[in-house]
This record gives sequence, structure tokens and C-alpha cells, in this order.
Amino acid sequence: MPPSPIRKLVPYAESAKKKGIKVFHLNIGQPDIETPPSILDAVRNADIRVLEYSHSAGNESYRRKLVQYYKTVGIDVTHEQILVTTGGSEAIMFGFFTCLNPGDEVIIPEPFYANYNGFAVAAGIKVIPITSTIDTGFALPAMMEFEKVITPKTKAIIVCSPNNPTGYLYSRQEMEDLKTICLKHDLYLFSDEAYREFSYSGKSISAMHLDGMEEHVILMDTVSKRYSACGARLGAFVTKNKKVYDAAMKFAQARLSPPGLAQILGEAAIDLPSSYFDEPKAEYLSRRDLLVKRLNAMPGVFCPKPGGAFYAMAQLPIDDSDKFCQWLLESFSYIKRTVMLAPATGFYGTPGLGKKEVRLAYVLNLNDLNDAMDCLEKALQEYPGKIQIKTAINENATV
Amino acid sequence: MPPSPIRKLVPYAESAKKKGIKVFHLNIGQPDIETPPSILDAVRNADIRVLEYSHSAGNESYRRKLVQYYKTVGIDVTHEQILVTTGGSEAIMFGFFTCLNPGDEVIIPEPFYANYNGFAVAAGIKVIPITSTIDTGFALPAMMEFEKVITPKTKAIIVCSPNNPTGYLYSRQEMEDLKTICLKHDLYLFSDEAYREFSYSGKSISAMHLDGMEEHVILMDTVSKRYSACGARLGAFVTKNKKVYDAAMKFAQARLSPPGLAQILGEAAIDLPSSYFDEPKAEYLSRRDLLVKRLNAMPGVFCPKPGGAFYAMAQLPIDDSDKFCQWLLESFSYIKRTVMLAPATGFYGTPGLGKKEVRLAYVLNLNDLNDAMDCLEKALQEYPGKIQIKTAINENATV
Repeated sequence: MPPSPIRKLVPYAESAKKKGIKVFHLNIGQPDIETPPSILDAVRNADIRVLEYSHSAGNESYRRKLVQYYKTVGIDVTHEQILVTTGGSEAIMFGFFTCLNPGDEVIIPEPFYANYNGFAVAAGIKVIPITSTIDTGFALPAMMEFEKVITPKTKAIIVCSPNNPTGYLYSRQEMEDLKTICLKHDLYLFSDEAYREFSYSGKSISAMHLDGMEEHVILMDTVSKRYSACGARLGAFVTKNKKVYDAAMKFAQARLSPPGLAQILGEAAIDLPSSYFDEPKAEYLSRRDLLVKRLNAMPGVFCPKPGGAFYAMAQLPIDDSDKFCQWLLESFSYIKRTVMLAPATGFYGTPGLGKKEVRLAYVLNLNDLNDAMDCLEKALQEYPGKIQIKTAINENATV
Repeated sequence: MPPSPIRKLVPYAESAKKKGIKVFHLNIGQPDIETPPSILDAVRNADIRVLEYSHSAGNESYRRKLVQYYKTVGIDVTHEQILVTTGGSEAIMFGFFTCLNPGDEVIIPEPFYANYNGFAVAAGIKVIPITSTIDTGFALPAMMEFEKVITPKTKAIIVCSPNNPTGYLYSRQEMEDLKTICLKHDLYLFSDEAYREFSYSGKSISAMHLDGMEEHVILMDTVSKRYSACGARLGAFVTKNKKVYDAAMKFAQARLSPPGLAQILGEAAIDLPSSYFDEPKAEYLSRRDLLVKRLNAMPGVFCPKPGGAFYAMAQLPIDDSDKFCQWLLESFSYIKRTVMLAPATGFYGTPGLGKKEVRLAYVLNLNDLNDAMDCLEKALQEYPGKIQIKTAINENATV
């Protein structure tokens, strides 16, 4: 079981802080956007005598509200196709436990959300990475690459769009390609859509929008990023495949119920006006534009413009991203400040990849983000392991 | 993956209610005791701008408070030995994932909490039941019975005291016996102590009280029953074994953090005066006494007096507890009322056991409990599958 690549540098950050250095945290997807006060108020005003177990699938009232929410994003499901989970994390776990047996394989385009690894270890299944590359902005690998690794043990593909860690937004064509391959080989499509609302270069296409995939799609969802409520731990496992739903329900029953207070918050969130997203989305968009501009202006740095989420992957002129990120915390500061990044190595399944890449989460306000970029710029000048990048890449490519 | 034995009768209960029949729910451990208003107020009054991920091990402030709580029950641990979990359920899962490999075996005295099965399936491990019997009030099976089933694949024993489903409270000697066998065979002792506060026939002995077991004990805890806050989904995985703790921490990191709002509630709960438990404990005790008295007064019924928790197991003069419990909901009513019980079969790992036993959770007030016993008494007279019990058992045995 590998340690979390995002959290393993934490002790170095703590040491830096003890030395009086301000650390800009671009390493973790913890938004600084205010949780909508009205949804916290719903919890405050709830009339609770006994905080009881909810239904194992989540409160019916919440699931019925979720049906309304999904309608607004073009997803047509019933409350009996929704299983409320403890964060998106549990939805992923239920998917693995339900659809794969120990020893089975799941294909994931890399770089990918590192915690899939942890859940795969727990479920005893094997992650088969296929590589997407920074020069395409991390577009979906060619169908041929999937075909190469499909075996009788392959049971599923995971896709995350908008993507964590790359920010890539899959096109309609790419989603259709995934459909083709899933139908051809009878694979489940696990669709992690945690960042649905934060799509800048077009609308996010849900796996649930793919006709004919009703028996294949499992949507893994969460309120964490949508309403800046990561601490609530409230997600959803959504599928039209009744057998899969019923099997997941047994795991849901074993753990009794999802968090009760969070469900009150989740239910209230669906009453937020649809205009609620305008402000955080505009904010993230400004940050993305600043970040990408600053990064691409640094010598030897390349950052494709992400189409969604609040992450960007950047290629840096460095020897080793793990060393560099540790060095930033341990040995570097600029006017008593430094920056914490996530080395990309932890997001690749293929050993050796990501050594020149880092993930940046733009979860700080524009001012701090700019200051953080000042730090990074200085750091790249000073870093003892800096190298020359020889390949020229079109810095203005929009992906 | 087996369905929850406690929940599989739910559709029958729903049908009965639709027919206008009042169903007394003695089937599930959902206490009716009020959640302390002060701990809900703590959530209401919390000043939250962004509901962020907590530390993966839980908020440090909460873990430090838990250290204080554990001191009051004679358990000496540090906040770095506590991992806050999503209910006791997740603590059990972490134990399985961390201490056992797929194919490994865990010994559990049966009848046992049925959801251990679900987590065992998820972790790919094998549950080896050894039988405790109603005539001893479900005392720990003889050490010999453990020795008989221990193999090189045996990695752990699970014990739950006070016990769910039997209410049995393990004695100091029984806990010492468990220590002997765990040390002899180098086994982990998973100790589920969800009902610690509700011990009537003596003090609950924690596995953490056993000297020399520091590397072997994993305490699985929850606030669900302690503070009548089942819906919070807040538990703890506690161990002095650093390697086990660090391994569990990786799973904790994969799922990011335990529920945030619940942690506020949990932290406030530790400020409740120790006298808080007097009232619910006295209430459960009166209910136990009523329940046991009523049951043992019914012809052919035997219910040993449980020493803790809020469950009792009763032997009934019936052919099949699954059929009987379904019949109670489907075909029986007495003055427009019936009772929902949990068939004991679901609590046994050995097929065929528990056919004459049911579990009753005394989570209703004395009035309702008495009415429920009236129903049960009538039902046993009317049930077509009633049988003669020939063995005489001392009905007044306290266990």
C-alpha cells in the first residue's frame, strides 16, 4: 500500500513552517472557496432529537433531491439508482468491490488520481495504466493503447473528466471512443465526475450521457468540490445496472449508513440557485489563466491549459520532481516564502514517469497564487538539479 | 456477499405498516435515547467558513480529547495511537485490510455481529466461527475450541464485549484467556467495544487493559451507541502497534478524512459530565429487566440475562426463526400491532445454527417494550410452526 503522494511531503512543510516560512499550498485539492453559508445553516437549523442511522442508500429525501440535481446536468436517473456514499472515495471502493474480483484488472489513463491505487490494494485488484502525455495536454490515449492491454481479466476502465490531476476535459468524441471500447469488450466504465461544474473549455460530458451504456456505467460523484464541502464526506454511487446497484447495496448495508449531518447539507445544496456556480467558476477560471500564463513565461516550463477542474500539470526543467518538491520545502525560501507542489510521479502507474512534472492545484486567491509563482520562478533559478529542456512545445496550445 | 440479516425483513415491515399495523422495532440497534442536545449544539455553533478535509487521522484536537476520554475508562493511549474513522465500521475494515492478507483467517465467537461478514468479503478473508451457546449465556468458548481451529492462516480473533448480538459481558478471566491464546499464536486481538458504557453486571474489561498485548490489540470504537449518535458515523481505530497504525494510516489517507461535522460533535461529547451515562444506563437496565422477565415468563422461551449492551438473545419454541420473523410481519397482528425481531441465523457463521433463536434490541421505552412483549406472547401461541422445547434450563441464571 503506497503512501499518499500528496501527503507524504507534509512533514517537510511542517518543518518549513516551524522555521517561520510561509508555505503556499498548491499541493492538495482543498478549495479555499467559501462553503455556501445556506447549506451550513441547514445543518444548524435541523431539528434533530436522535441522530439516527439513515437508510443505507442515504435518506430517500436526499436521493430524490439528487434526482433533480442530476436532471439539471442532463443525467436522467431515479432515486433507486443512487446510493449515497461517504465521499467520492467510498463510491470508488464500492465500484471496485462490486464489479471486480481479486486479481481482476482496471485500466486507467495515467497520470491519475493517486488514491485509486489505495482502493485497488484494498480490493486486491490490479491497476493497468496507459499513458497520456503532456504534449497533447493529456488527451485520452489512442484506442489502440487500450486494445493492447485488455486481457480476459480486464473488467473496467476508470475515467475522470474534468481530470484530476491534469485538468483535461474529455471531448464528446473521446467519451464515445470509451463507449465503443467498453461495449466491444464488455467493460464497466467508472466515471469519476467530481469536477463536473468546473468546465471551462466546453461542457463536461458525463458517462451517463452515453446511450446504450446503461448496464456499463457507474458514476462516482461527490459534493466535495462542487460546494467546497470536502470535509462533509458525501458522495454518490450512481448506476442504472440493477445487479451492480444491488451488490453495492450489500456493502452499503455492511457499513450501515452514510454520514447523517452531511446529508442535511447535501440536500440543502440542491436548493442553491444554478447561478451559484458562476462565481466560483469565474474565480477558478481567472486563477487558471494567471497560473498558466505565469508558468509558461518561466524558462523551460510548459503547462498546457487545462479545460476544467482546478489542477494543472506543468513540465519543469528539473532532474526529479520528488527531489525538487522536497527541496522547495527543506532548502528553499524567497522572502520567507515557499511553495508546496505535488510531484507528478505519484500520479503515474508506470515507474519512472512524471519525474519532470508537478501538479499544481489552483486553490489560492489570485494574489497568493501570483506570490507562489514568484517563489517557483526563483526556485527554478536556484535549484541545483535544474536541467535544460531541449524540446520546443507550443506554449499556447489550448487543450 | 450476504445481505444484512437485520435489514432483509425491511420490505415485510413496510408492507405491514401499509396495512395499518404498528411495528415495534426490536430488530435493529438504533437507540431511541435522545442525542445529547449540547453535542448537536456544538455543531450548530461551529464557526465554519470552509468545510475542509480534516487530517486523515482526524482532527488533532479531537484525538487529544479522545485521549482524555480513554483515560476515564482506564485506557492509556496517545493521540498518535488514535485514528478517527467513519463509524466503527471503518475501524473494522481498516483492521481487516491492515492485519490480514486475502485468504487469511479470523476467528470469531458466534453468534457475532453480522456485518463482520461483509467486511471479510471486502477484504477477501475467511471468518472461522467457534460456537458459544445460549445455555452458558454465550460465554467465551473454551480455549480448546480456539486451539482446534487455529491454522498458519489464522491472523486474528475478534471479540466484542459487551457483545452484540448476545449482550454477554466478557469477564476479566475470559479476556486474560484471549490474551494467552493471542500471545501463544501471535494473533491480533480486534476488540469491538462499541457498548463499553452499557455494562450492568460489572465493569467492561477493555482489551487495552491487558498488559503485554500492546503489539496485538486493535481497539475498534464508535460514538454511535455511547452518545446515541449512530447517524454521525464517527468511530476510532486505536492501537499501540506502530506498524499497524502506519499501515492503517495509508488506507485512511486514501479515503482522505473522516466526516468533519461529526468530529465537532464527537469533540463536544467528551465534555459531557461522566454522570451523563447514568440516565441512559439506568433506562437500558430497566428495559433489560422487563424484557428478560417477560420473555422467561413465556412458555418454552429462554432468555439469559445479558450483562451489557442493549441486546438479548432468546430461544423460542419455534421451527425456524427466519420463517417466524417473516410470519410476524406478514401474517400476524395483535390489536393492530406486531413486532420485528432479528432471526439469530444471520449472526451465526455455522449453517443451521440459530434457528430457534432471535435477537431483541431493547431500544424502545418500557411501555412500548411491554406492548411488544404482549405481541410476542400472542404470536407464540398462534404461530403455526411452534414446537415443544424439551430441555429445561434454569431461567434465572445470570450471566
